[in-house]
Amino acid sequence: MIGGGEGAFIGPVHRIAAAIAGNCRLVAGAFSSDAERARRSGEALGLAPERSYESYAALVQRERELPADERAEFVAIVTPNHVHAPAAIAALEAGFPVLTDKPLTDTLDAALQLQEVAHRTGGLVGVTHTYTGYPMIRQARALVAAGEFGAVRRVAVRYTQGWLAKAEDQGGKQAEWRIDPARSGLGGAFGDIGTHAFNLVEFVTGERMTRLSAELRAAVPGRQLDDDGAAMFHLEGGARGTLIASQICTGDANGLEISVWTEEAGLHWRQEQPNSLRVVRRGRPEEIWTPGVDRAYLDEPAMAVTRLPSGHPEGYLEAFANIYRDFAEAVRGRAPQQPVYASLSDGVAGMRFIQAAHDSSARGAAWVELA
Amino acid sequence: MIGGGEGAFIGPVHRIAAAIAGNCRLVAGAFSSDAERARRSGEALGLAPERSYESYAALVQRERELPADERAEFVAIVTPNHVHAPAAIAALEAGFPVLTDKPLTDTLDAALQLQEVAHRTGGLVGVTHTYTGYPMIRQARALVAAGEFGAVRRVAVRYTQGWLAKAEDQGGKQAEWRIDPARSGLGGAFGDIGTHAFNLVEFVTGERMTRLSAELRAAVPGRQLDDDGAAMFHLEGGARGTLIASQICTGDANGLEISVWTEEAGLHWRQEQPNSLRVVRRGRPEEIWTPGVDRAYLDEPAMAVTRLPSGHPEGYLEAFANIYRDFAEAVRGRAPQQPVYASLSDGVAGMRFIQAAHDSSARGAAWVELA
Amino acid sequence: MIGGGEGAFIGPVHRIAAAIAGNCRLVAGAFSSDAERARRSGEALGLAPERSYESYAALVQRERELPADERAEFVAIVTPNHVHAPAAIAALEAGFPVLTDKPLTDTLDAALQLQEVAHRTGGLVGVTHTYTGYPMIRQARALVAAGEFGAVRRVAVRYTQGWLAKAEDQGGKQAEWRIDPARSGLGGAFGDIGTHAFNLVEFVTGERMTRLSAELRAAVPGRQLDDDGAAMFHLEGGARGTLIASQICTGDANGLEISVWTEEAGLHWRQEQPNSLRVVRRGRPEEIWTPGVDRAYLDEPAMAVTRLPSGHPEGYLEAFANIYRDFAEAVRGRAPQQPVYASLSDGVAGMRFIQAAHDSSARGAAWVELA
Amino acid sequence: MIGGGEGAFIGPVHRIAAAIAGNCRLVAGAFSSDAERARRSGEALGLAPERSYESYAALVQRERELPADERAEFVAIVTPNHVHAPAAIAALEAGFPVLTDKPLTDTLDAALQLQEVAHRTGGLVGVTHTYTGYPMIRQARALVAAGEFGAVRRVAVRYTQGWLAKAEDQGGKQAEWRIDPARSGLGGAFGDIGTHAFNLVEFVTGERMTRLSAELRAAVPGRQLDDDGAAMFHLEGGARGTLIASQICTGDANGLEISVWTEEAGLHWRQEQPNSLRVVRRGRPEEIWTPGVDRAYLDEPAMAVTRLPSGHPEGYLEAFANIYRDFAEAVRGRAPQQPVYASLSDGVAGMRFIQAAHDSSARGAAWVELA
Repeated sequence: MIGGGEGAFIGPVHRIAAAIAGNCRLVAGAFSSDAERARRSGEALGLAPERSYESYAALVQRERELPADERAEFVAIVTPNHVHAPAAIAALEAGFPVLTDKPLTDTLDAALQLQEVAHRTGGLVGVTHTYTGYPMIRQARALVAAGEFGAVRRVAVRYTQGWLAKAEDQGGKQAEWRIDPARSGLGGAFGDIGTHAFNLVEFVTGERMTRLSAELRAAVPGRQLDDDGAAMFHLEGGARGTLIASQICTGDANGLEISVWTEEAGLHWRQEQPNSLRVVRRGRPEEIWTPGVDRAYLDEPAMAVTRLPSGHPEGYLEAFANIYRDFAEAVRGRAPQQPVYASLSDGVAGMRFIQAAHDSSARGAAWVELA
Repeated sequence: MIGGGEGAFIGPVHRIAAAIAGNCRLVAGAFSSDAERARRSGEALGLAPERSYESYAALVQRERELPADERAEFVAIVTPNHVHAPAAIAALEAGFPVLTDKPLTDTLDAALQLQEVAHRTGGLVGVTHTYTGYPMIRQARALVAAGEFGAVRRVAVRYTQGWLAKAEDQGGKQAEWRIDPARSGLGGAFGDIGTHAFNLVEFVTGERMTRLSAELRAAVPGRQLDDDGAAMFHLEGGARGTLIASQICTGDANGLEISVWTEEAGLHWRQEQPNSLRVVRRGRPEEIWTPGVDRAYLDEPAMAVTRLPSGHPEGYLEAFANIYRDFAEAVRGRAPQQPVYASLSDGVAGMRFIQAAHDSSARGAAWVELA
Repeated sequence: MIGGGEGAFIGPVHRIAAAIAGNCRLVAGAFSSDAERARRSGEALGLAPERSYESYAALVQRERELPADERAEFVAIVTPNHVHAPAAIAALEAGFPVLTDKPLTDTLDAALQLQEVAHRTGGLVGVTHTYTGYPMIRQARALVAAGEFGAVRRVAVRYTQGWLAKAEDQGGKQAEWRIDPARSGLGGAFGDIGTHAFNLVEFVTGERMTRLSAELRAAVPGRQLDDDGAAMFHLEGGARGTLIASQICTGDANGLEISVWTEEAGLHWRQEQPNSLRVVRRGRPEEIWTPGVDRAYLDEPAMAVTRLPSGHPEGYLEAFANIYRDFAEAVRGRAPQQPVYASLSDGVAGMRFIQAAHDSSARGAAWVELA
Repeated sequence: MIGGGEGAFIGPVHRIAAAIAGNCRLVAGAFSSDAERARRSGEALGLAPERSYESYAALVQRERELPADERAEFVAIVTPNHVHAPAAIAALEAGFPVLTDKPLTDTLDAALQLQEVAHRTGGLVGVTHTYTGYPMIRQARALVAAGEFGAVRRVAVRYTQGWLAKAEDQGGKQAEWRIDPARSGLGGAFGDIGTHAFNLVEFVTGERMTRLSAELRAAVPGRQLDDDGAAMFHLEGGARGTLIASQICTGDANGLEISVWTEEAGLHWRQEQPNSLRVVRRGRPEEIWTPGVDRAYLDEPAMAVTRLPSGHPEGYLEAFANIYRDFAEAVRGRAPQQPVYASLSDGVAGMRFIQAAHDSSARGAAWVELA
C-alpha cells in the first residue's frame, strides 16, 4: 500500500475492505511521503519493519527484489491525486499490478501517460469506484443490459456533500489537500465526486457519455478549485442527462443518487440506502429490489457480490471489499467476467470527463465532446 | 367557470377545490367550446339552465347584466391553454376577476397582452400553481425568508411524469390537446410542468430566476412539442440550479421534487409525500417538519393553510382549495398578506421562462436572460 | 348534523367531507347542547335560522314535519360519545337514517339498544370508521379476499398517539370530554382509537375477531379512563394478532399502522402515508401499490374511491368524503356493493371489542370471547 | 472457533466480523462435529492442519498445552444451540474465555450450569447479540439513559422473518437444526429471534423485563417448535410492552423493529435501515439521527462503534465486528466501559425469557414472572 498513513481517511477503508475480501493481506507499505510518519504508520499496522518503506520508489524497488512467493502481489495507491500517476507508473515499470483510488490521476495528461505505460508493460490497472461494488447497482446494470426495459432516455445523477460548505470547514488533513490544486489537480468537486457520478452513469446504462455542457465554480470565496457544479450531458444511445456534483450542499453527507428512465421502466438508487433499488415498470406497482443470498430473483452480477441473507444490510465497506476481492482474483489470473473494479479505460474516461467539464465551464458552459 | 366540462381532468379538480375552500359556490359556467356538451355538463353539475352558457363570451356578457348580488363574483378558466388569454381578457373587460389554470397563456405575447388589459382595467388575476398551496412549501419559503439559513446556493428541481412515455399513451382528451401546438402553445413538457417547477423555485427561494441554458426535445418520434428537457439556471442572489421537466420518465406519476441548499441548511420536499419537509442544518440531526393545527413550531403562512391536526394527511385537493379560498377572499377585498394563488406577474414570469427555455434550446442551450 | 359546533374538531371534518362527496348538502343542524352556541354555530355556517335547532330532539321533530323534498335526508351525529345513542334513536324513531361518528355509542348496552331500534324501524345506520375509506385499504382487503395470498396468519396493528402524553396536555375541548367517563363511556384510548384499529383488522382480513387478552391502564396519574393498552387476539380463521392503542406515545400523531401476513404475502400500510400499500410476496421484490384513476392494476373497490390521477395525493378528508358519498347514495337506494361506511353490525362489533378489552384487563388480561 | 464449518451461515459471519475488528485472528478451529468435514473446513480456511481439530474437546485440550504466546486467546462458539453449553464449559474449565452465539444455551438449566462454571473459574463469557453493536442502538440507549426523556412508558418490538413460512422452506442446513428440538432446545422463533428482541428491549431501555404473558405456536403443521408468537410484558420501571417473534411472516427478511416511548420523546429503529434512528420529541419536528465519525452530536458509545464518515453506510458485519473487537479487548484486560457484547448475565436473562415465554404459553398466556 502506498499512502494511507496516520490521519488518512481512505487508507483504513482500503485496509478493512481488503480484510473483508478475504483473499488479500497487507504485507508492505509506504504509508506517507514523510519517512518518520511512514515508519510510525507501518509499526501501528503491525508490519515487519523491513516491509515498511520510506517512499513508494523504495517500496517497488525492494519488493521486486524479494522472492516471488514473498513479495507483494499488487500495489494499492491511496495517496493524494498528484501521486497516483508517478507511483502507479513506478509500480507498473517494476512489474506490479496497480489498484488506485479515484480519480485515476491529477490531470488528463498524467492519465494518458499512465495508460501508455500500462499498455507497454501489459500491467493490470484497476480504479476503486466504490459504488459499482454495491449489489443493487450491479442489479440495475443487469436490468438495463437485459434489454427488456428498452433504450435509456433520461438520466439524473447527483453527488452532493456539505462538508466544504463553509470556509471554516476546510480543516482536517483531507480537506487540506483536496482543495489544493497542486495536490488535487483537477480534483475539485467534479474531480473528487463528479467522477464517481460519471462512472455510475456509464456503469448502470452501459453507455459512454459523448458530450456535456457544464458550469463549475468555487462558491466559497477564496477557494481555488471548484466546490460546486452541474452539467447537462448526452449518452451515446441518445439519452439526455443532468449531473450535479457539489461539496457545498449543506446537510448532505454522501448524497449520491441516480435515476435512469428507459422506455419501459424507471430505476432509482441512493447510496445512503444502498440496499434498495426502486424499479418502476410502466403500469405496474413500484418494486423494491433488495440483496440477499436467498434472493433467487437477482441476476448473477448482483449475487456474486452478496455475502449475507436478505435483511442483513451490507454497506460501503463490503462494496469496497468486492473491489479488492475481484482485483486480487484478476491478479491471480482468475478475473471474474464482470469485475467490480473500474478498468483503466474507465479511469481514463473519468479524467476526460473532468477535463471536459472544466473546459466547458471555462467557455460559458459550451458543449464539449468527450470522444 | 369556463371550460372543465365532460371528460376534462382539471375542471372537476377546481370544483372540488372550491367546495373544500368553503367560501366559493359554482353559479355559472361555459363548460365547453361545444355548445351541446356545455349544456350537458351544466345540467350534470346541477346548474340552473340559464346560467349554463354556450361560450365564454356569452357568459361574461350575460353575467355582467345580472344584479350585483346574483352575478358571478369571479371567473375561473380551466380550458386548454390557447383559450386562457381571450377568455381572461373578455372577463377582465367585463369587470370580472380571473383565476386561471397554468400556464398563464399559450404564448408570451398573449401573456403580455393579458397583462396590459389587467393593468388597464385594474382587474385581479390569479394563477393556480397548485403546489405552492401545500403547507410544507409555505413553511419552506418561510424558513428561507427568515434569513437564519443564509443565502441560497444551489437548487435542484425536477418534475418528471411518465404518462407520455410512449406514442400509444397519447390517447385521452388531455393528451390530445396537450401535445397539439395549436391548443397548447408553448405548452409541452416545459410549458405544462416545467412552469410549475419554475414557479416552485421562485416561490421557495423568494428569488427571481435571471438566466438559463436549456435543452428541450421531443423524445417520442413524431411529437411536435417538447416532452423532455432540462436546464441549468441562475437565481438573482447568485445561486445555481438545475431543472428537469419531462413527461417520458417511465414509471413516474407527478414526481415534482425540490432541494434547496443554503449556507446553513438543506431543504427537501417531494410532492408525492407533501406532508414531509426535510430540513437538514449543519451539524444537526435531520429534521422532518409536518403540518398540523397543533404544530406550534410552524410559521403562520403554513399554519394558515392547514385544516387538520397532525397525522391526518391533507393532499392535492386541499392545496388547490387554498388557492380558491384565498382568491375568493381577495376578490372580496380581504386578500391575505401572502396569498396562495400565483400573481399575474408570477404568471408572466412563467411565460418568460418557457419562452426562454425554447429560445435557449433552439440555440444549442445558449444562455438566455430572463430579465 | 347533530353536534360539531364552535371549537369542535370532528364537526368541520364531516362538513368538508360532505362538500367533497359532492352529493351532500348541509341543510340543518343542532350544533351544540348549549342553545346559544348552537345558534351561533348555525349562523356561522350560513344556515337558515329556522333550520338551526337548539337540540337534537328539536331537530328530528321539526325536520320530520317539513315537506319531503325540503327536509334533511339523513342525520349525521358528531357529538361526544354519550349522545350518540339517544340522538341516533331519536332520529331513527323519526324516520331518519343515521350516520354517526365512532365509536357507535358510549356503552355496549347503548349499542344493543340502538341496534334493537334500528332493526325495529328498519332505519339505516352507518359509522364513520374513516380509515376504511382510503383506496389502499380497500385494495388490501381486495387482495386478501381474492384468495391468492392464502390464509391470514398474523396481524400486527397499532394506533399510537401522543396528544395525551402528559397531564397538562388535557386542555382543549376535545381532551376535556374524551377523558371524562360520563361523556366518553368506554371511550378511553381503546374506545377512541383502539376501535379504529379493531375495525381495520376486521375490514382488511375479512374475518371477525374471536377472542382477546388485553391490558389497559391509565398511565398518566389521576386519569380515569385508559390512555394506554395492548391486546393479543385471535381471528376466526386461526390467525393471531397484537393490537396497541395508546394516547401517551409521545411524538406520535395518528400512528395507525397495520401489517397482515398471509401464507403467500405480507401487506403493510401506515395511515400517515396512506397512498402506499406495501405488498411483499414470497420470493419476489417488494411492491408499492399506489392509487390513481390511471392505475389499471387496482381492483374495483379501490378504484371506486379514487378521484385523481396517480401521483396527486388524496388524504384524510377524501377518505372521509367517500363515507359520506356512499352513505348518501345508500340513503337514496343506490348503495354500492361494498360501501365505505361501517355498518351497524360493525359498530356493534366495535363496542363488543371495547367491552371485552375492559373485561379482560379487569381480570388480569384473561382471555375473553367476543362471541 | 468451534462450529461454523462448510455450509454454515453464522460461521463465516463471525470470521468476517473478526477480520473487520482488526484485533482478532483465526488461529485454530473445530469446525464440525463431523471430523472429516472439520478437517476440510480448516483446510479451506488456510489453517495449519495441526490447529484444525476434530472436536471441541480436542481443541481446548491441545490449545491449552501450547505456549501462551501461541495458543488461542479465546474461543468462539458458533454451533447449534445444544453444543453451546458443553463446549463453553469445556473451554472455561481449560481457562479460555468464551464468546458464544445466541441464545446462550439450549435450555435454562444448561445456562445456569454454565453460569456456575463461569463464576467458579472466573472465566469471561460474552454473547453475540449482534444488534446492540449498531451505532444507532447505542445512541438510543444513551438518549434514554441520559434521563432527559423521562421514564419509559411503552415499548413495541418485533422480529419478523418469513423464511420458515411454508413447510417446504425447511430445506437447508440451518433450517434443519433450527426446527429440531434436540439441537435447538428452546430455540424456536422465540429462542432464535425473540431473544434478540428481548435483549434489544433491555439494552435500549436499560431496564429488566419483569413479567410476561406469551402465546407461542407452531403455525406450520407438523413443526415441533414454535415458529410464531407474541407477548405482552412489563419492565421494572413500570413500562408496558409488546413483543412479536415469528418466522412465518411471509415476505419479511430480518424485520427487527423497536419503538420506545418515554415521557418526553419517542425513539424508533429498524434493523434493515440501521443507520437511521428516529427521535420524536414532544412538540418538535421529528429528528433522524445518523452515524458518522464527523457527527459531533453523537454520544460516546455510538461514536466508539463508528468507523466511517457520515453517509457511508455501515451494516450488519460491522455491528458484529464491534462485538469481536470489544471482546478481544476485554480478554486482554482492556474492556471498554460499555462493551458491545452481551454479558453472561444478559445471556442468562435471555434464557429465562425464553423459558418464561414457553411456560406462559403452556398455561394459556398466564403472566409469568422473570425474576
